[in-house]
Amino acid sequence: MPRAIVSHGSYKSHNWKLENVNLRPLQENELLIEIVASGICQTDLHFAGAESGFGIHYPRVMGHEGAGYVLAIGPNTTVAQINDPVILSFSGCKTCEPCQQAHPAHCSNFNAINFDVDWDNTHVFEAETATPIYGKFFGQSSFGSRTIVRADSVINVAGQVQSRAELQLMAPLGCGIQTGSGAILNAAGARAQDRVAVLGLGGVGLSAVMGAKIAGCRQVIGIDRHASRLGVAKELGATDVVCVSAEEDLGAVSAAVMGLTGGLGVNVVLDTTGVPGLIAQGVKMAACKGKILQVGTAPETATLEIPIHEFMVSGKQFMGVVEGDVVPREYVPKLVDWVRDGTLPLAKIVKFYPAEEFEKAIADMQSGETIKPVILW
Amino acid sequence: MPRAIVSHGSYKSHNWKLENVNLRPLQENELLIEIVASGICQTDLHFAGAESGFGIHYPRVMGHEGAGYVLAIGPNTTVAQINDPVILSFSGCKTCEPCQQAHPAHCSNFNAINFDVDWDNTHVFEAETATPIYGKFFGQSSFGSRTIVRADSVINVAGQVQSRAELQLMAPLGCGIQTGSGAILNAAGARAQDRVAVLGLGGVGLSAVMGAKIAGCRQVIGIDRHASRLGVAKELGATDVVCVSAEEDLGAVSAAVMGLTGGLGVNVVLDTTGVPGLIAQGVKMAACKGKILQVGTAPETATLEIPIHEFMVSGKQFMGVVEGDVVPREYVPKLVDWVRDGTLPLAKIVKFYPAEEFEKAIADMQSGETIKPVILW
Repeated sequence: MPRAIVSHGSYKSHNWKLENVNLRPLQENELLIEIVASGICQTDLHFAGAESGFGIHYPRVMGHEGAGYVLAIGPNTTVAQINDPVILSFSGCKTCEPCQQAHPAHCSNFNAINFDVDWDNTHVFEAETATPIYGKFFGQSSFGSRTIVRADSVINVAGQVQSRAELQLMAPLGCGIQTGSGAILNAAGARAQDRVAVLGLGGVGLSAVMGAKIAGCRQVIGIDRHASRLGVAKELGATDVVCVSAEEDLGAVSAAVMGLTGGLGVNVVLDTTGVPGLIAQGVKMAACKGKILQVGTAPETATLEIPIHEFMVSGKQFMGVVEGDVVPREYVPKLVDWVRDGTLPLAKIVKFYPAEEFEKAIADMQSGETIKPVILW
Repeated sequence: MPRAIVSHGSYKSHNWKLENVNLRPLQENELLIEIVASGICQTDLHFAGAESGFGIHYPRVMGHEGAGYVLAIGPNTTVAQINDPVILSFSGCKTCEPCQQAHPAHCSNFNAINFDVDWDNTHVFEAETATPIYGKFFGQSSFGSRTIVRADSVINVAGQVQSRAELQLMAPLGCGIQTGSGAILNAAGARAQDRVAVLGLGGVGLSAVMGAKIAGCRQVIGIDRHASRLGVAKELGATDVVCVSAEEDLGAVSAAVMGLTGGLGVNVVLDTTGVPGLIAQGVKMAACKGKILQVGTAPETATLEIPIHEFMVSGKQFMGVVEGDVVPREYVPKLVDWVRDGTLPLAKIVKFYPAEEFEKAIADMQSGETIKPVILW
């Protein structure tokens, strides 16, 4: 019988349970997937981390970095064949202006489709007691051994991914890895001549470091509070690291980066922390014509004060970026190639956990011991 | 004998005088130019509009939208031959990172070279009383019948511009016109599918409207306080106009633009006003993935509050842009072609004044009666 981690309430209140579930029949543009692995991401904890709020709905199955094999295909669904290996990503509406202009991560209906429960039939699962359970979180709800996925969330990697073990490793490509690397390679368009700084070295930040290495950027500065993560950043291609000390003024961060860049600043800054004080430092450490990319989720009401005149003279750019602003069906296959040929050493940041140990996986992510936990089914 | 409008003190205190001047001998990388015309721009009034402050130096000859013919060439100066027609623009250092990466308007030494008086020998003029007078404002100080120009400020249009009358019309291309049109065509990279809004319809804003028409943008919304300018904007290609009423809340401006765009907002916003309240409206009226370009000079200490999370989700971009971020020696010849073949109807915003009537020209610009006054020598 299929099993899933069902969030009956917030994670904080210990209301996530691994239990048996049934799945309803497939509808149009849906696929039944046997999940082999799913990465865990802070966003899972955000949307099932409080008792109520925008996009919080219980009982629901979370998980949005899934990979697996196609077990069945709904009517009028052509994205994959039975037994194809697939990697899952977010969903878009495909009809709004951003979707039609190849910016699906900025889909006008992104929130409704990926976080809410009213877009299409999200009663995917059913408890043994027959209670309906919401699915289709990010179009997939991959914290289950089987799940029903929106066709738009499917990236078919048949012919590319050769084994179940490979597919397990690739699970987080469709969110965290594409978010960090895509922001650098796609949204910022970083080049060999660029100096790059990455604020926060979790899964997204370290993926950005790997992306900057792929772009051949001449200087890549990793910035974090945890010394262990600075070490991983250096292994993955950071040329310099800056440790953020809790005792020091945050101003020390931009001062350190200016020092490391001979006073020029960096051409690309990526913030993955969402901490307003650090974002302001990011603006300061940007060079003339520098791009500051906002990737981390800041508190809903947080604001950034931009000095208008100085920003104009220096030609700086502050830009919001979701999911690397990539088209997953084009970008994830590139990532797969890079993982397979060693260009993207994904295994260095992934740690596997059996589904039964999901609580340990989350605890290890929160303590910083594990960068990207991936649960196996 | 050469004459020049010499700023002995601020314009407000009536300290600009048309008088006879002498010019010193040429040095390396300098050219002696017979000025045929010079546009007047708000920046002239900014840098000779107060008694003291950054970049304010008296006595000095202002003017930075000059055009003329080469009378003499300094040692090791190869940009033009004697008698060549030239259009003048700002100067860069050519050695800093932004200059070397084709962003001379964001030159690290831009202020020192264009506004200050210490970069190279700026004692260009001498009064009949032998008092030295500063020149090389924007590398040119074109408010004189003759002036000494930095080689880097020279765009050679020999073979392109056919008559003195044509050259007179082209004078403002090297600043105001490239600033507005370049921001749209170069910095924003506007395309046919884009909806564009321009805040403020002076010379820069109307050049942006013309640029948007050249790009074939499907909707171009002109926004100003003056009904007369809205009419000119429509003549130049604006598809819609919004009148900013002094009585209404500024929120009405973004509401009007949202209404005109079916609730989608615009893909490109260009602010030429520097008014913080209007810039904030510009951020509001931007569509998903919309670019907000800051072109107008805001007060030195003004700030813009950006809602970080909303900016990230919508993928908006706020960017500072000076002089359209163009390389004048590549871009201005394109503008010349567009003026000559009617693509850029520059004559519709230019009004000529004899040099003797420079005070009337400035008064007409300030009242809004004339959009781009050009003084003739």
